[in-house]
Amino acid sequence: MYTYRSESLRRLGVALLTACGASAEEAAIVSDELVEASLMGLDSHGVMRYTQYAEDALSGKIRPASPIRVVKETETTATVDAGMNFGPVSAVRMVEIVCQKAAQRHIACVVSQNGQHVGRLGSYVTKCALHGFVSLAVVNSSKHGHWVVPWGGREGRLATNPLAFAAPTAERPIVLDMSTAMIAEGKIRVLRQMGKQAPPGCIITADGAPTTDPDLFYGPPHGAILPFGSQLGYKGYGLSLMVEILGGLLAGIASSQDQSYVNGLCIVAIDPEAFCGRERFIALAEDLKAYHTGTPPAPGHERIVLPGQLDDEMRARRLRDGIPVAENTWNSIVAVARRVGVDAAAVVGA
Amino acid sequence: MYTYRSESLRRLGVALLTACGASAEEAAIVSDELVEASLMGLDSHGVMRYTQYAEDALSGKIRPASPIRVVKETETTATVDAGMNFGPVSAVRMVEIVCQKAAQRHIACVVSQNGQHVGRLGSYVTKCALHGFVSLAVVNSSKHGHWVVPWGGREGRLATNPLAFAAPTAERPIVLDMSTAMIAEGKIRVLRQMGKQAPPGCIITADGAPTTDPDLFYGPPHGAILPFGSQLGYKGYGLSLMVEILGGLLAGIASSQDQSYVNGLCIVAIDPEAFCGRERFIALAEDLKAYHTGTPPAPGHERIVLPGQLDDEMRARRLRDGIPVAENTWNSIVAVARRVGVDAAAVVGA
Repeated sequence: MYTYRSESLRRLGVALLTACGASAEEAAIVSDELVEASLMGLDSHGVMRYTQYAEDALSGKIRPASPIRVVKETETTATVDAGMNFGPVSAVRMVEIVCQKAAQRHIACVVSQNGQHVGRLGSYVTKCALHGFVSLAVVNSSKHGHWVVPWGGREGRLATNPLAFAAPTAERPIVLDMSTAMIAEGKIRVLRQMGKQAPPGCIITADGAPTTDPDLFYGPPHGAILPFGSQLGYKGYGLSLMVEILGGLLAGIASSQDQSYVNGLCIVAIDPEAFCGRERFIALAEDLKAYHTGTPPAPGHERIVLPGQLDDEMRARRLRDGIPVAENTWNSIVAVARRVGVDAAAVVGA
Repeated sequence: MYTYRSESLRRLGVALLTACGASAEEAAIVSDELVEASLMGLDSHGVMRYTQYAEDALSGKIRPASPIRVVKETETTATVDAGMNFGPVSAVRMVEIVCQKAAQRHIACVVSQNGQHVGRLGSYVTKCALHGFVSLAVVNSSKHGHWVVPWGGREGRLATNPLAFAAPTAERPIVLDMSTAMIAEGKIRVLRQMGKQAPPGCIITADGAPTTDPDLFYGPPHGAILPFGSQLGYKGYGLSLMVEILGGLLAGIASSQDQSYVNGLCIVAIDPEAFCGRERFIALAEDLKAYHTGTPPAPGHERIVLPGQLDDEMRARRLRDGIPVAENTWNSIVAVARRVGVDAAAVVGA
């Protein structure tokens, strides 16, 4: 395990991604997103993705500098063709569009086509909340990411389909960012590499039998992931279907067809000013925080943690202490950087 | 157990509620809502509520014929003062408003103040979907309904806070209607009356210890309900908080204060015409349905059931066979009807 300052990892991302064809602005956006996720301890969406993003840019799967175009628009809505540019680049552009429209018309909704991996979904609703909006976002994935079963099924028909929600407060926004599945596919992969079992109730075999064995999940024949909710998993299935409809169907994409896109993003922003007023809303959000954090804890819990709070606390720690990077993650970054003439160790000043 | 035709129960509702001060139109709306819920097998939100609604109207808690006013409005948003009229009456009015605005401006959001019990939340998103809109709705409750703990807490700070989502298809809409808690308080009450235990993982004692005993839930000191999600209950907590923010805070209501209102409703409607187009959306919804219902079932399941499908199937059966009404439910209705000079048996033609 190595430890790097966030600024060093950001500098590395910019050097690496510009060497892969990104503009300086695009490279900065992507690096900011991945480093922020690493700062929050969400390593699966953090700088370990430098390797994937760089490789995808080199292979042409991601198209750096490709234009991001609004292909259909009203005063309150937009469909954005993300042009297979880096997902965070199109997502940040979508945040700008949805906030501009919500500022003018009080509520707005923006969806994407041809979007690549957007990274941490919570980031985009957080940005909307920092602009003063209440925001809901969802992201679906095209068919090749369909690991999650409809409730009662034994073959995947949905991705882990996260949904995120954020609301402004007087300090950091309240940020919910949750998968509508029991476990992420990437987490099962990590458990398999470590020779560990998955938690009970998360995955099934190809025959639909409950299992905790990652090998039976990967097969062949491959198994599947259950929707969020354990014995009430039909609710998680319903939430996942909501994500699919908002993230995929609204943008005109068929769920049953494989697509070259990766993620379909939908962001809604609502202006509290049009309702109780922004100032009143912030006061009520603080009242809500105090009401909840003042709840006496149950045995085994020390305190009430609001959605997003642990991420913020980790962010403060890692800003101070640096970001740990696993050796194999670092080695992969070094290798892809070398391919494009970037000396990763030199850039981070190690 | 008695069995009545839906038309008979609707006629009874109209007679009862007009005798309690509702206008003919209000009584028809409320009766339609409750009978629809009964038809779908959602008896807790069905005609058993005639008694509560009638008693609340007689006691002045519900104010029949009270005006429902838009107190703040933009082209895309509205805050509706429900005037303590019957919840379904204000909710149906909110559906009209949100659909009118979404038809004009492609997306709209409407919230309520001073709203009474709205009944089955899924009904209102279904109506929006039947008008062609994708719709999300949530409903919170004021402090006296706060049975659900924040994740890690042992005192209630939230109600069972349902959320509902609907999307149009070529046939009946897809309708998700779910509580963000593990169990409804009303269900615990019924289990207690029957001398039964609650399912594991749903309720805790006043000390925060897991229990299945309804008596330990009701106390004193009273226990609490866990948020939806079992071991991942922090996700259900986040969803419940989202419901609270949209249903309560946007309308300017403080969570920590007790209020005379019962339910805070928020409805969002989105017009697919502004995105992929309505016709394309319907085709994609049918593609999605076929893709999902074609999933091979897991052991213990005969088929894949889409959200809302079981309700629709029950509705068809009860339209044909009638609606069963428990004897004590019927006796309560008869008693309150007698108070206002209505002979329930004569009205249903029994």
